[in-house]
Amino acid sequence: MSDVKNVVIVGSGPAGHTAAIYSARANLSPFMFEGYVMGGSAGGQLTTTTEVENYPGFPEGVEGPELMQLFRKQSERFGTEMVQEDVISADFSQRPFVLKSENREVKAHSVIISTGATAKRMGVPSEEKMWNNGMSACAVCDGALPMFRNQPLMVIGGGDTAVEEATYLAKFGSVVYLVHRRDELRASKIMQERALKHPKLEILWDTVLEDAVGEDYVTGASLKNIKTEEARQVDVAGIFYAIGHTPNTSIFNGQLDLDDAGYIKLKLGTQETNIEGVFAAGDVHDHKYRQAITAAGTGCAASLEAERWLAEQGLTE
Amino acid sequence: MSDVKNVVIVGSGPAGHTAAIYSARANLSPFMFEGYVMGGSAGGQLTTTTEVENYPGFPEGVEGPELMQLFRKQSERFGTEMVQEDVISADFSQRPFVLKSENREVKAHSVIISTGATAKRMGVPSEEKMWNNGMSACAVCDGALPMFRNQPLMVIGGGDTAVEEATYLAKFGSVVYLVHRRDELRASKIMQERALKHPKLEILWDTVLEDAVGEDYVTGASLKNIKTEEARQVDVAGIFYAIGHTPNTSIFNGQLDLDDAGYIKLKLGTQETNIEGVFAAGDVHDHKYRQAITAAGTGCAASLEAERWLAEQGLTE
Repeated sequence: MSDVKNVVIVGSGPAGHTAAIYSARANLSPFMFEGYVMGGSAGGQLTTTTEVENYPGFPEGVEGPELMQLFRKQSERFGTEMVQEDVISADFSQRPFVLKSENREVKAHSVIISTGATAKRMGVPSEEKMWNNGMSACAVCDGALPMFRNQPLMVIGGGDTAVEEATYLAKFGSVVYLVHRRDELRASKIMQERALKHPKLEILWDTVLEDAVGEDYVTGASLKNIKTEEARQVDVAGIFYAIGHTPNTSIFNGQLDLDDAGYIKLKLGTQETNIEGVFAAGDVHDHKYRQAITAAGTGCAASLEAERWLAEQGLTE
Repeated sequence: MSDVKNVVIVGSGPAGHTAAIYSARANLSPFMFEGYVMGGSAGGQLTTTTEVENYPGFPEGVEGPELMQLFRKQSERFGTEMVQEDVISADFSQRPFVLKSENREVKAHSVIISTGATAKRMGVPSEEKMWNNGMSACAVCDGALPMFRNQPLMVIGGGDTAVEEATYLAKFGSVVYLVHRRDELRASKIMQERALKHPKLEILWDTVLEDAVGEDYVTGASLKNIKTEEARQVDVAGIFYAIGHTPNTSIFNGQLDLDDAGYIKLKLGTQETNIEGVFAAGDVHDHKYRQAITAAGTGCAASLEAERWLAEQGLTE
């Protein structure tokens, strides 16, 4: 048996595990770098979520980490080899391709990239110190914590996700400020109307976050109106970023075609990257839908394309 | 409240129910024609499957009909209105659109078509009895099941899909017979070469399937050479049809752009048909992947697109 893997899957969210399930069932003996630190821990963004109500097949809902465990068990059942390591470099200029982690070098005939995306941060001065002490980039993950109950809360952003997260936090907080740097929301019309008429939601227009306020945990936010230059401080127990995501593609930069935001560009209607034999699936290329179920669908598609490509090349029996 | 539905979903497989779950959670109060007879019963092709091992989230596998019940419960939980009726006509020339069943007429601002496709069958005498007992129309779905491991298998057909499925099955079976009624394959050249040189693949030319052989499950196939009229029997544990699918689009013919095989044509990278406000999801447009998980993914995507389109048009609050 050759030491070259048929398929190496990078990333272990819904896209990666679905690719693994399909590849394993196709007898391709896939190898998965689950990830460790980069782009969040193994399991992807679902592991930092609480209840998932919209993954089809779970009418009563399922906890994000539990769903990921089910995915992982299924990959394992069909024989996927998994290591909790980050890929630190990938060389697609030679065949077989070479992927490296701190601990090993793996050769691959084909690669499926499903490294996902990471929520963006502002980088305000006390952000590092306050992170997880009242600052978060995931309202759905953290909003239900006792520290936020019946407290004033704040969301930074102006898109659909920001409005969604603010609406979600309004279930827990006494009031939710939506801080937006412009004088109108970028959110879709329906989301805007929802925000504007929500009794517990207050929009602070033309405003940016200067810093979090507090000793050991967030007790307020210092803000600035960018039109009037006026500074103010607002008491809040939580500050939630909802300013977008960064796709986890830095290690592929220069080898794969990426769009302006860093997402992997695919040939339309396929999961193929610009390099034959390298496929992508999930949030690493999809900034339009970004759901567990759409990621899983593209993971399946990538695996089927990889399998057909390998067979065409005569690289598998 | 208007009597015009925001979203009418036609079809109740994984694509339709995922569209329903997302549309209902987006407060669009979707209405679903589940179907009744046309294109198979409500629930789509999964209802005629036994164990599903490759739908992510069910590491121990799940029965097809059970999975569909879970999907349906989830749609119901969020308030989808469902009727077990076939749509017999659709008028997309006026807005709102008008869809009719035998019992009612429904007006819709937007429509998601997820009527699926139906695998073609030969109609050999014992087909009904042997279906799922060794006879199948989906090698990718069923090929990895233990009953087929290291057994002689058979694929009926001569196109690319037939060769693909035979190649796929060769990973599991001891030998795979490709039964084709002509003396050359319709498959593309590359696929033909793959088939002809594959060590575990044997092509039976000029041959048709007369019937499946066996008591409770398939143990063989009775064949006839149509040139020599010679009959013969071959021991196989599985007979897989790969003679194509028929997309369930007849009622949309003349209004929606369809390809030569009758599949709905979409704008690449979207779920949009040629008519604004009409979307499609699942096997009714996808003849490439045709999996429950890919269908579900596109159902989610279609719903998100419909929701955004409706909001843009000011057709929903």
